[in-house]
Amino acid sequence: MDDDTPPFFYVMRYASEADRDVIDMVSGNPDWEAPAALREGLREYADATPDEFQYPPSVGLDELREEIAQRRGVERSQVIITNGAGEANHLAMAGGLEAMDGTEIILADPVYPYYDGRTSLLGAEKTLIPVDETGHLDADTVREQASEETAVIVVNSPNNPMGVTYGHDTIEALVDIAEEYDALLVSDEVYDHFDYSGKFTSALTFDSPNRIVTNSFSKSMAITGWRIGYAIFPHPDSPAPYGGLVDRARTRHMLTNVAISRPGQTAVLRALRETGPEYYEASREMLEERIEQFTAALDAAGAEYTRPEGSFYVMARFPEIPGTMENIEWLIDEAGVAGMPGEAFGETRADWMRFALVTPRAAEAAKRLDDFFEDEA
Amino acid sequence: MDDDTPPFFYVMRYASEADRDVIDMVSGNPDWEAPAALREGLREYADATPDEFQYPPSVGLDELREEIAQRRGVERSQVIITNGAGEANHLAMAGGLEAMDGTEIILADPVYPYYDGRTSLLGAEKTLIPVDETGHLDADTVREQASEETAVIVVNSPNNPMGVTYGHDTIEALVDIAEEYDALLVSDEVYDHFDYSGKFTSALTFDSPNRIVTNSFSKSMAITGWRIGYAIFPHPDSPAPYGGLVDRARTRHMLTNVAISRPGQTAVLRALRETGPEYYEASREMLEERIEQFTAALDAAGAEYTRPEGSFYVMARFPEIPGTMENIEWLIDEAGVAGMPGEAFGETRADWMRFALVTPRAAEAAKRLDDFFEDEA
Repeated sequence: MDDDTPPFFYVMRYASEADRDVIDMVSGNPDWEAPAALREGLREYADATPDEFQYPPSVGLDELREEIAQRRGVERSQVIITNGAGEANHLAMAGGLEAMDGTEIILADPVYPYYDGRTSLLGAEKTLIPVDETGHLDADTVREQASEETAVIVVNSPNNPMGVTYGHDTIEALVDIAEEYDALLVSDEVYDHFDYSGKFTSALTFDSPNRIVTNSFSKSMAITGWRIGYAIFPHPDSPAPYGGLVDRARTRHMLTNVAISRPGQTAVLRALRETGPEYYEASREMLEERIEQFTAALDAAGAEYTRPEGSFYVMARFPEIPGTMENIEWLIDEAGVAGMPGEAFGETRADWMRFALVTPRAAEAAKRLDDFFEDEA
Repeated sequence: MDDDTPPFFYVMRYASEADRDVIDMVSGNPDWEAPAALREGLREYADATPDEFQYPPSVGLDELREEIAQRRGVERSQVIITNGAGEANHLAMAGGLEAMDGTEIILADPVYPYYDGRTSLLGAEKTLIPVDETGHLDADTVREQASEETAVIVVNSPNNPMGVTYGHDTIEALVDIAEEYDALLVSDEVYDHFDYSGKFTSALTFDSPNRIVTNSFSKSMAITGWRIGYAIFPHPDSPAPYGGLVDRARTRHMLTNVAISRPGQTAVLRALRETGPEYYEASREMLEERIEQFTAALDAAGAEYTRPEGSFYVMARFPEIPGTMENIEWLIDEAGVAGMPGEAFGETRADWMRFALVTPRAAEAAKRLDDFFEDEA
């Protein structure tokens, strides 16, 4: 997804044109294997009858919505299958902005670039709230900034790009703030299977009509290109305007996308049913090993960094080398490691760099950085 | 697609709950076989490496865009792969409304319900222009209605629901009207493989920056549920504001959908390359036979109808039985044939009915209607 925003595209191209081997830690694309049942589900679908190749219901296959609803403890009527979490967030933010009284969307800084771009597309007032020193969004700061003008608050936990996981109290406070100002909390939980801290708390934990939860199978099943996500809306029986959010989203979804790709929905349904916890556990263990290797090298290089509690990104700051695009290029050329400049994610971590642990060569990248900074010292 | 708009949903449910066998001529879902190479392409993709499961470029796979560009005689930079023609039309209409001076969207009546709903969603002024007695949109009438206020004109040829194909002169005149009023013609050509008249003319035939062509593989490859479509924009070097339409659409597409399902794109690419004209010819021949059978029964029943020149719909009016929802129900119960009430498509054919020839039982449906009206007479 990141690859198409201009700075990502620029770094990817710079790295690919470099006159040396470069380890790609730029994108958010998993490099590991999808569940076996997903591939099996797609093979099976390839032999389906012609009627199974036709329009699924606009809001998604009944069985997939039901499977998700049961797992998340909600009713099927609250679930819409979307073109990845991207569309889920779009429906949530566009609908929230339309239905709530205010015109402001609150985002954390550093910010996932799509939230920022979408806020601009929707013509909302944008308020970026800097995270604290630990990389967390402080709920008290959000409360100070929020007002009657606030329509939507968007958060992502486990977080891209900071790698932190917001805890129970933070999510509870954010729901509370949304309630206080008649606003909508959009909780993007796409990295929920990648929490190493045990702190992950879904916004669904708190019974409230003021929150929409978005998610996808892009990361959990390593299929960012398949575009199967979902949003969970307040129950239709919730008081106005919250109860109407799901219908509003159904209409927007129908008139924008009509329906979502059925091959992907069918295969994901099978994978969801047949994939045991050991698949997700194995991904987490592999990533925890990469985190160990990579942060050890950061320690050796004397870098400041936020130790990942979740997701698969590491934000780091090297001594004397701010995370500008120029220095990203320099690291590509001299160390053979490609990360992203912090400035791509806003102001507060503009002199940091983001590294994505989506390569089997994370240990090698760590060693390269280590050697490079040793030579520099 | 149709199945989720309220009247379609209502008729489908009424038919499925009927206390007898009902032949479904309601939806726009092909009942015939997809190209063999498409199934083969999906099987092959199921065995792809993990990197092929990740984000394709937001605007679509390079090779698919290139294949389409070559076939349509445009440059790859003009092509965006979309979530079916639905998203293609959304991008075209939303971008045109934003970039053009006017606030009006012109549509034909009878209208494909999604154009109508999307115009409302976008908050545009809506002008519905009645088709003439033959079911065609008269370009002179459009010229009389068009003004500086016109932002977008949306047409569909071959046409749903009328079944007509607009000829060379009509399309040329519509491009000319768009140029005259600095407006944008959106030409939805999703039924281009289903023209029986030889009259089909793509809006691409006329060199102009004032037109966007939309299409999909939903109908031509009988995969309405796969959601692979595309839009062809004016060349980026076109004068403002036309040259900027493709960039505007790229941004909206990226922030709404991120990218389009890669399993589908990959399989469609293979099918596009390996499927010969005989596949499309066979579909046309089968449909022409259904048209023969069905219209013969309409003749026998004394119905007025528009003989299909393209697409796979027949609009008909039975003597003394206007196409109300009540009469649709009556035909379901008494004749065992389910069509759509004309009122679902606007005003001018509100007392007609639409029948979709997407069932191998078209001949049987014809006979049922024939028998029914004979009994009634």
